[in-house]
Amino acid sequence: MSLAPSAMEIVAHYQARIQPVLERWLPPSTDVPARLHEAMRYSVLGAGKRVRPVLCYAAGVAVGVPLTELDGPAAAVELIHAYSLVHDDLPAMDDDDMRRGRPTTHRAFDEATAILTGDALQVLAFQILTDDQAMNPDPASRLAMIRLLATASGTYGMAGGQAIDLAAAGRQLTLSEVEEMHARKTGALLVASVMLAAAARPALAPGRRESLHRYSRALGLAFQIVDDLLDVEGDPAVVGKAVGADALHDKPNYPSIAGVEAARARARSLMAEALSALEGFGPEADELRTLARFVIERTQ
Amino acid sequence: MSLAPSAMEIVAHYQARIQPVLERWLPPSTDVPARLHEAMRYSVLGAGKRVRPVLCYAAGVAVGVPLTELDGPAAAVELIHAYSLVHDDLPAMDDDDMRRGRPTTHRAFDEATAILTGDALQVLAFQILTDDQAMNPDPASRLAMIRLLATASGTYGMAGGQAIDLAAAGRQLTLSEVEEMHARKTGALLVASVMLAAAARPALAPGRRESLHRYSRALGLAFQIVDDLLDVEGDPAVVGKAVGADALHDKPNYPSIAGVEAARARARSLMAEALSALEGFGPEADELRTLARFVIERTQ
Repeated sequence: MSLAPSAMEIVAHYQARIQPVLERWLPPSTDVPARLHEAMRYSVLGAGKRVRPVLCYAAGVAVGVPLTELDGPAAAVELIHAYSLVHDDLPAMDDDDMRRGRPTTHRAFDEATAILTGDALQVLAFQILTDDQAMNPDPASRLAMIRLLATASGTYGMAGGQAIDLAAAGRQLTLSEVEEMHARKTGALLVASVMLAAAARPALAPGRRESLHRYSRALGLAFQIVDDLLDVEGDPAVVGKAVGADALHDKPNYPSIAGVEAARARARSLMAEALSALEGFGPEADELRTLARFVIERTQ
Repeated sequence: MSLAPSAMEIVAHYQARIQPVLERWLPPSTDVPARLHEAMRYSVLGAGKRVRPVLCYAAGVAVGVPLTELDGPAAAVELIHAYSLVHDDLPAMDDDDMRRGRPTTHRAFDEATAILTGDALQVLAFQILTDDQAMNPDPASRLAMIRLLATASGTYGMAGGQAIDLAAAGRQLTLSEVEEMHARKTGALLVASVMLAAAARPALAPGRRESLHRYSRALGLAFQIVDDLLDVEGDPAVVGKAVGADALHDKPNYPSIAGVEAARARARSLMAEALSALEGFGPEADELRTLARFVIERTQ
């Protein structure tokens, strides 16, 4: 009988850890401009899966960084993710009314507030990483973290991936084009979530850093293919949002091009790749291993 | 006969300096996503006054920082300004069709691209400040710069000011409320432009830092009151955009509440305050003095 925590236990543990951190960093809705601050809190503090903070903390365990040093980076990467959802949901972008079972930010408030909410969440992420109260005292590490997060969020990362995604509507993409889009749109930030923990440990052996990079790249793509699979065949009650959204928006995704079986096979082989990247690690990487298996289990 | 350079010469000199810096930092429109990169270049490289880089460089001269160390910070603050214009012009915000004599970004491209352009310009600003090639080698100074720029851009600065501005449409504000709105919406970033140069010089005496802060706060507010005056009574051919926009949007501004003469008087007294803040400086602050006078001369 194994005493190792299950994926659900790991996720629940870090979800509970990040919640008060986010709460503390978000400006109070009693401060002017109250409506904007309220919208920021609404956009972040609702039920989110907190995949990125979970990965950041689990990677911290793998490289021996105290979790207190990762509260700031984990919050920062979640704020970047939250801002991207608020902007992606806007009428001019994906035009979504519901997110995580609640009205999207521009529906609950208004479009102008939603645009400013995204803008302000993005900059708050960088502010957190510069803050004097952050636990990691080494300015070079913190600069490295800001560089990681900025690069992952920009046009060669998340923002670029969203632009490619928007441009892809109604077009036929090859599988490698879909993978490139995913690598930027969601992969870059998932990779950053893991690499932020590595950046908190400047003395980490380069080989370890490279292993974590391989792990996170494989996991990030697997995660997105599974998301695509859930969009094609998921149960809306389980998925928590409308399914078939990609088909509705005429957006190419992995299973729609390769077929459901091939998509599942690709996700499985990516999970194997993620696990093999961690071969040089001992039990300290068990949480990362459990999370990699969990990503796949969502559909199998 | 004075040999001191005129304000126009100072401005032209630094405008010419920042242009290739911006050009170099913006992603090439040959890189994917090409349309987004093109929109970023369009939004930044068109004719701008470059007030913020000019202030940053002139402050660098005042505190003895080599200009090469300020190319990155000057570009970063201009990118934040450019992103704010792109988002402020959006239909859900101020809904402007023209900017600097050309179609606004969402008009020249489309709304989704304009939203992503602003997002990507904001993060590029932070990326520049972390870059290894930046001239300032001290990580603590660079962290201080990122903190300054992030704070100035967030909800207690620029983004918050825009929220207050939007909420003010159709309402009656007091003069001190208008000043608070201006202090955040435009003042915070103008202050940051000057303080970025001070941050590049960690050994700067605290008194000098405080003087530059007083200077930039007064200048920032004067600048905005003059902008309001130009909106009320300017010649569109000189101002370069439609005048009367505030009245059209039913937005309170300084002269509409206090009257044109009182607004002019306030701008003059702010200029005097800006100059008096620099009293402890010698001729090394002459460029900052010339720029303060220039701000007022735009309307008198």
